[in-house]
Amino acid sequence: MSKLVVVGTVAFDAIETPFGKTDKILGGAATFIGLAAAHFNTEVGLVSVVGGDFPDNYLTMLKDRGMNIEGIEIVSEGKTFFWSGKYHNDMNSRDTLATELNVLADFKPVVPEHFKDANVVMLGNLHPAVQLGVIEQTKEADLHILDTMNFWMDSALDLLKEVIAKVEVITINDEEARQLSGEYSLVAAARKIHEMGPKFVVIKKGEHGALLFHNGEIFFAPALPLEEVFDPTGAGDTFAGGFAGFLAASKDYSFENMKRAIIYGSNFASFAVEKFGTERMQTVTNDEISQRLEQFKALTKFEITT
Amino acid sequence: MSKLVVVGTVAFDAIETPFGKTDKILGGAATFIGLAAAHFNTEVGLVSVVGGDFPDNYLTMLKDRGMNIEGIEIVSEGKTFFWSGKYHNDMNSRDTLATELNVLADFKPVVPEHFKDANVVMLGNLHPAVQLGVIEQTKEADLHILDTMNFWMDSALDLLKEVIAKVEVITINDEEARQLSGEYSLVAAARKIHEMGPKFVVIKKGEHGALLFHNGEIFFAPALPLEEVFDPTGAGDTFAGGFAGFLAASKDYSFENMKRAIIYGSNFASFAVEKFGTERMQTVTNDEISQRLEQFKALTKFEITT
Repeated sequence: MSKLVVVGTVAFDAIETPFGKTDKILGGAATFIGLAAAHFNTEVGLVSVVGGDFPDNYLTMLKDRGMNIEGIEIVSEGKTFFWSGKYHNDMNSRDTLATELNVLADFKPVVPEHFKDANVVMLGNLHPAVQLGVIEQTKEADLHILDTMNFWMDSALDLLKEVIAKVEVITINDEEARQLSGEYSLVAAARKIHEMGPKFVVIKKGEHGALLFHNGEIFFAPALPLEEVFDPTGAGDTFAGGFAGFLAASKDYSFENMKRAIIYGSNFASFAVEKFGTERMQTVTNDEISQRLEQFKALTKFEITT
Repeated sequence: MSKLVVVGTVAFDAIETPFGKTDKILGGAATFIGLAAAHFNTEVGLVSVVGGDFPDNYLTMLKDRGMNIEGIEIVSEGKTFFWSGKYHNDMNSRDTLATELNVLADFKPVVPEHFKDANVVMLGNLHPAVQLGVIEQTKEADLHILDTMNFWMDSALDLLKEVIAKVEVITINDEEARQLSGEYSLVAAARKIHEMGPKFVVIKKGEHGALLFHNGEIFFAPALPLEEVFDPTGAGDTFAGGFAGFLAASKDYSFENMKRAIIYGSNFASFAVEKFGTERMQTVTNDEISQRLEQFKALTKFEITT
């Protein structure tokens, strides 16, 4: 079976949306990525760090969902990374209320021996130095996929550019693509980001879908129009998890297969936003995913003979 | 041959974008709609009004492009409708600098005898009272399509709702759909607008594509990702023109055919934004449209066998 390494935060989130409010619940990029990726026929190994305050039952849940958690370091005297945010009424923008790095501040990722020959490495949102550390330990991988955000562009741009130069695929949202490239047009932005290294550039547009750029070709995957978005937290990570999990399981890194991977990513993301935090992703079944896949197919299908 | 009536403004526009600035040039909803619709195998009759200041060569151009202009009233002592606007850097928002109604203020539309049995009627953006007048004169039509905007929601909502109750199809942009329905989710907004009358609800999202809602089913058409949007003026009208022209020519008003019509609408709109005003739409060829259609097909096509 193929192997997928996922590095990212495993964290506590406190979230406020127009629909309600949570205390500290399970969150983190690696958590969302793993919950999606674990649906595929690939071994998923998480690499992260938590504090002594992190509940055992969360770790058990991750194991039960099929993830290998050997690479999650537990710093018993430390506290788990905590993020708190409040979404505005349009659900497309949010304010960060608190960010406590805690054990993340000194995190040196260690990829477990068994995962050093992983086929695919998903570098979830984290300090570029940590992402570089994981790349160093997984040099044989077929594919490194990078997810990042504007925070690192503001605070560690040079290091981030080093990471970008080493990966085959980057996933990034539209505003971040504009910031990184200095171009407003996403077509122009993707071209500039190609020049920085990645052969495949995935631009996530939230409720407006995602674009895949490769060699002058473009694929567009819609987001499923939803009656209600309950909590967007983790949607981008879940997208990345479905994307990376599908690619790792199929070991096919062609443009055609990347399209399928993006559809799977969008499919999983459409579930993630239905409840608070990871709640929906913990219960979604393969049957539900297959059914929704049919909706995705119907959504953009048309026949014009010319 | 089938017939399509188009009612809307024929106007002067003065436009400022980050790329440049024009003096008074040819514009207006009916102009853009007609330029797109005239590419299809249907008789296109414009119903509008202009002043004595409107150049003959503009009228000649419309005739040369295949439109019937019998329904364009010329008020020789009056002045043509004038709109002036300035686009912000993101090209998604604009300020209106001037709106001079002029001859539009007292406009009573008269549908020429030859077009009273039109198959399709495209009600371009205008005062709802004018749109109602055209509906009254084209009662036998298979299909009335309404385009409107927030301005009429603010100033003539009751009359607008009367129009909405009488049409089979409405095209409206996302913010306007939210305003009209009071719902943020576009799925919920479309359902409420269905309840107001139209069986088909088309929500235009500009660079993010368009959604078609019908009977609980959804179709999504992407906009073509463009290197550069030069001038968005008239893009929505051009979309409506491609949509209405295709439907009128095919006389097939099924959901499947509406999908094709939306793709054609998006296709034409992608040309309209390439130059100032109507410039690009005056020169676009059927070959160019066919070629771009292939890009639209490739853009969302994927194969997943389950």
